[in-house]
Amino acid sequence: MINKLVANIKKTNAPIVVGLDPMLSFIPKHILSKAFGEYGETLEGAAEAIFEYNKGIVDATYDLIPAVKPQVAMYEQFGIPGMIAFQKTVQYCKEKDLVVIGDIKRGDIGSTSAAYATGHLGKIKIGNTLHKVFDEDFVTVNPYLGSDGVTPFIDICKEEGKGLFILVKTSNPSSGEFQDQLIGEKTLYELVGEKVRSWGETHMGDEYSYIGAVVGATYPEIGKQLRKIMPKTYILVPGYGAQGGKGKDLAHFFNEDGLGAIVNSSRGIIAAYQMAEYKEKFTELNYADASRQAVIDMIEDISMAIK
Amino acid sequence: MINKLVANIKKTNAPIVVGLDPMLSFIPKHILSKAFGEYGETLEGAAEAIFEYNKGIVDATYDLIPAVKPQVAMYEQFGIPGMIAFQKTVQYCKEKDLVVIGDIKRGDIGSTSAAYATGHLGKIKIGNTLHKVFDEDFVTVNPYLGSDGVTPFIDICKEEGKGLFILVKTSNPSSGEFQDQLIGEKTLYELVGEKVRSWGETHMGDEYSYIGAVVGATYPEIGKQLRKIMPKTYILVPGYGAQGGKGKDLAHFFNEDGLGAIVNSSRGIIAAYQMAEYKEKFTELNYADASRQAVIDMIEDISMAIK
Repeated sequence: MINKLVANIKKTNAPIVVGLDPMLSFIPKHILSKAFGEYGETLEGAAEAIFEYNKGIVDATYDLIPAVKPQVAMYEQFGIPGMIAFQKTVQYCKEKDLVVIGDIKRGDIGSTSAAYATGHLGKIKIGNTLHKVFDEDFVTVNPYLGSDGVTPFIDICKEEGKGLFILVKTSNPSSGEFQDQLIGEKTLYELVGEKVRSWGETHMGDEYSYIGAVVGATYPEIGKQLRKIMPKTYILVPGYGAQGGKGKDLAHFFNEDGLGAIVNSSRGIIAAYQMAEYKEKFTELNYADASRQAVIDMIEDISMAIK
Repeated sequence: MINKLVANIKKTNAPIVVGLDPMLSFIPKHILSKAFGEYGETLEGAAEAIFEYNKGIVDATYDLIPAVKPQVAMYEQFGIPGMIAFQKTVQYCKEKDLVVIGDIKRGDIGSTSAAYATGHLGKIKIGNTLHKVFDEDFVTVNPYLGSDGVTPFIDICKEEGKGLFILVKTSNPSSGEFQDQLIGEKTLYELVGEKVRSWGETHMGDEYSYIGAVVGATYPEIGKQLRKIMPKTYILVPGYGAQGGKGKDLAHFFNEDGLGAIVNSSRGIIAAYQMAEYKEKFTELNYADASRQAVIDMIEDISMAIK
């Protein structure tokens, strides 16, 4: 799946991923009214609106992008109907030949991590029958529990030809509270980065490992440092756009081949029609066109930066 | 909710929690056959079996115990039907007046943590209507992202009178890989423990904070150390029984009032009928009676230790 991600990035010339993190406040009124008209102001109504909204964005952008990253929390908060919308979104994106990164940030003791990996990447055996469940292509994983919390995910990735992005340095303001602490001469994020590199060596694709890392766009100097520590690791870079990361900050997340990183934008793409930059030209009726324009602009911004 | 947890513990004289972490291999054949007969070897069939199995255990033990801890991964791996079984299990246990600790180990950047907290502890607003979603009493949280990944959970706990258990030192063999690293003169788990204490000071119950910690039974010396660092913090102690922790190791997780810790056992209770200790006396037909006996034995083991 890392080979497919790299191929999709080369084909589209767009090292970006669209974060499908819907919030009700992003969804145009006509979509909400229709869904609430049919299902009421219920979890089902919200889930229906979310899926329709996502579909509009995917239809308007899938030919330009290699991958999407639905954040499961934004679905899970709507309970069972929300999780159905998550599953439908994953399937819809896969039908469009997009690589799907499930942003689930799971991680637990061994047997429990194995269950998460089974549910999100693998197949569950029931009696003598195997079933795919959520079936993303990649998921994000939290490393706090150490190797035996991570290797069950890697084992299932090997079976299924799938991959991970493991949190190394997150994009949020207080990520340094623990991640930047100095352990001897190294920070915790460096130590985690070294582990990700060595975990990744056990599951290599053609040019890059199936085991990637998450490093926030909001910390460009750290991106540069981690790029060197993990040369064969794909870096998923959140925090671009609404969280404050800019294209010019991102050059050092990439290798000299122009590969090695994929930059996520969520709100900046999916709610583009609400942003100052786009709201003169687009309305909520053509929100998906605004998303398409925001994708084009983001690709240009990042391409300039890595040239 | 911490007050209710403490009250339940005093009432039952049992500082234990039953981990409802069902695996298909634990479930008696008569339950599986019935569920597969009705739904086939499907996700629905597995979910039906899980819920029936849980119900048997809860019915046989609820009068002896203060709380349960369903591990969401064991449900999530069965997709949407699994999540329905999780939700039904939470509701069923609440009807029995048990405190429900959702072992979800979520944690993300601020807005995403807020979504998880809304879905698991709070209420989601759809149009003008508020809905409870999974509605556990407590959830477990991963601290790797730092304060701004944790405080959205705490904010919703304050609104709802609910609580958290934050991972400090986990029970698995490789937990030390990052958690035991020395930062100056302190380990990472001490640093996280100090943060948990200070987060907890903002949301106090009568005797203990609503913000608890997870510290594994498999590291008794560390439990002793963390007990001193976090005197008003309830400690959820996984790793007893099947993972190797023993009652005699647990004394120092408790305060002198006999409170301050709650010890989890999952497999050792819910699959007791398969264990050497119980399998002469119980069969899979009376698996729930075996679970009841295992609860009685566990309470005795731990009561001896804290005397």
